[in-house]
Amino acid sequence: MAKPILYSFSHSSCTWRVRLALNYKDIAYETRVVNLSRGETRDPEFLKVNPAGHIPALVVNGKVLAQSMAILEYIEEAYPEKPLLPKDLIQRAKVREICELIVSGIQPLQHRQVAGKYSDDKQKQLEWQDFYIHRGLTALERILTDCSGKYAVGDDFTLADCCLIPQVFNAEHRFKMDMSGFPRINEINKNLSELPAFKTAHPDAQID
Amino acid sequence: MAKPILYSFSHSSCTWRVRLALNYKDIAYETRVVNLSRGETRDPEFLKVNPAGHIPALVVNGKVLAQSMAILEYIEEAYPEKPLLPKDLIQRAKVREICELIVSGIQPLQHRQVAGKYSDDKQKQLEWQDFYIHRGLTALERILTDCSGKYAVGDDFTLADCCLIPQVFNAEHRFKMDMSGFPRINEINKNLSELPAFKTAHPDAQID
Repeated sequence: MAKPILYSFSHSSCTWRVRLALNYKDIAYETRVVNLSRGETRDPEFLKVNPAGHIPALVVNGKVLAQSMAILEYIEEAYPEKPLLPKDLIQRAKVREICELIVSGIQPLQHRQVAGKYSDDKQKQLEWQDFYIHRGLTALERILTDCSGKYAVGDDFTLADCCLIPQVFNAEHRFKMDMSGFPRINEINKNLSELPAFKTAHPDAQID
Repeated sequence: MAKPILYSFSHSSCTWRVRLALNYKDIAYETRVVNLSRGETRDPEFLKVNPAGHIPALVVNGKVLAQSMAILEYIEEAYPEKPLLPKDLIQRAKVREICELIVSGIQPLQHRQVAGKYSDDKQKQLEWQDFYIHRGLTALERILTDCSGKYAVGDDFTLADCCLIPQVFNAEHRFKMDMSGFPRINEINKNLSELPAFKTAHPDAQID
């Protein structure tokens, strides 16, 4: 199999999920930077790769995979070593429940374009983003209280952690939210921060 | 295995996805109605089942599964007969790409609570919903032009169709959108409408 190519931007949280999975599994890949801040997802060259104009895009043997969860599930199926889903079917559903809560229930609603459509006022945008992140993390904290161990679901690193890490970063560092109401999330994020993949997938460790 | 229990409401599009999968696979299940219009997801009895207060919830041997894609993937893994995902890994990623486009990229943004937070004005709410559905269906139409056959991905019914059907219904019947710009989506939806599962999972065929 040829080396996959990840079209990535350091601070794209959806791409960050994919970097975490690739790095955790020690999969060699090539990074091509698509600078979101400079609107490079609209560049004709990138649109030839992914006509939807979104990152992440993972190119595997000339085929373009899009949408972060679809890519994560592909990575898990194509590279089964160091699994990112438990064996037990109910536990697998729990991992995916957490992923979906973040991927569908938080991230699209806190997106800066959506907040920008809500209001031109920066303060109102922040309130909108804060509302949806806070609502989502409150639901997440409740779920994690039941199912987490060292990481989001038990003591093994899973796809749920790949989704959790960028969302917690957004809440804490981008939106400077008060995280004191989420002790379980904070504890898990602290445990995750000790993993090599946490460090190598971090925006600060990217080439852009 | 005991008969699964689906907490459902006829017009909940997320629950509808799950009904389509269960019905397509001929899985016997019990329906318990949670009337969204009457706010029954906040009833203490239901909150004992799913503290997040969301439908769908699928109870399997006393375990509660939540979030529609997590439930759909569970159904596919627990009941492999009449598969809802292709065998080929790239094609599986394509099915999941379409699911995620709808589940994360359209449905949460067109949700009536989100539109209601955007504006108190009914007309402005509709414009918001129209914007996000139109944007999503435009992206979907482009993807389907490459990968669809009789159904969304090739000629087999998949999870992508389980997500497509309720979203097309919302666009066409709830929001009365002009669908003339989406010939491939319309054609696929027409083909899907001939399946028995399309009819039995439809809101009009539910007990509520």
